[in-house]
Amino acid sequence: MKSSEDPFLQAAIEEARKGLRAGGIPIGSVLVHRDKIIGRGHNQRVQKGSVIHHAEMNCLENAGRLPASVYRECVMYSTLSPCPMCSGGVVLYGIPRVRVGENQTFLGAEEWMRSQGVQVDVLQDPVCIELMRAFIAENPTLWNEDIGE
Amino acid sequence: MKSSEDPFLQAAIEEARKGLRAGGIPIGSVLVHRDKIIGRGHNQRVQKGSVIHHAEMNCLENAGRLPASVYRECVMYSTLSPCPMCSGGVVLYGIPRVRVGENQTFLGAEEWMRSQGVQVDVLQDPVCIELMRAFIAENPTLWNEDIGE
Repeated sequence: MKSSEDPFLQAAIEEARKGLRAGGIPIGSVLVHRDKIIGRGHNQRVQKGSVIHHAEMNCLENAGRLPASVYRECVMYSTLSPCPMCSGGVVLYGIPRVRVGENQTFLGAEEWMRSQGVQVDVLQDPVCIELMRAFIAENPTLWNEDIGE
Repeated sequence: MKSSEDPFLQAAIEEARKGLRAGGIPIGSVLVHRDKIIGRGHNQRVQKGSVIHHAEMNCLENAGRLPASVYRECVMYSTLSPCPMCSGGVVLYGIPRVRVGENQTFLGAEEWMRSQGVQVDVLQDPVCIELMRAFIAENPTLWNEDIGE
């Protein structure tokens, strides 16, 4: 399946665009359980003044308190390669698989996730790449803040 | 300095006790910059129904948006060994040192933090150990949920 035909990646991209429309950083995420979206989120640094509500964290929070057995049947989608914090969320909750929109504009802790048994697929989706490329070019200071640089 | 005389560990323990009094999981954290506490937090799983507000994450959130240069002069205190998610927060923001109350009741991602250049000191403080030991004995299901088990 091409990434442009993956409905879950498209839902994550829609989250990223929601964030962009609200003046935020355009990274989106969805949590999928048995082919159903059970959580959606996007980066909230600007909107909530938050340093922990990255897209994946916001998605986990919006999915709410779940039994370990559910996390272990989930796939986490993110438009961008998950940073160390978000990768840690995946490892903590035992989410077995992450599908990443792209890792060309930022490479997160993919290797660490893999070392912890997580399957990480990188789709190099052109829409995801362009969203971040344009955003970083226009907002380098905000972007650096979001990744601790 | 004995851990019982470390005012920052004591402040983290006070956060843990605040959480316990509110019916929550007794883990507390403070963020220290140049010998001054700039953020305090405690686990909010019960109080906020949150899966991301572990003590260290809640502390980072309460400290607010900070320049990378500030994080890089900080020490993070936690009453308990930081889980993979919270360890990831430390790695993301480049916090160079973590002082851990104890790792006997739960061992987090200390080795990974060290591999990323973080100095991790484990104090094995008897008050921190007893707080968690008693809590886990009385609330095993809630505790397992918090660590994704």
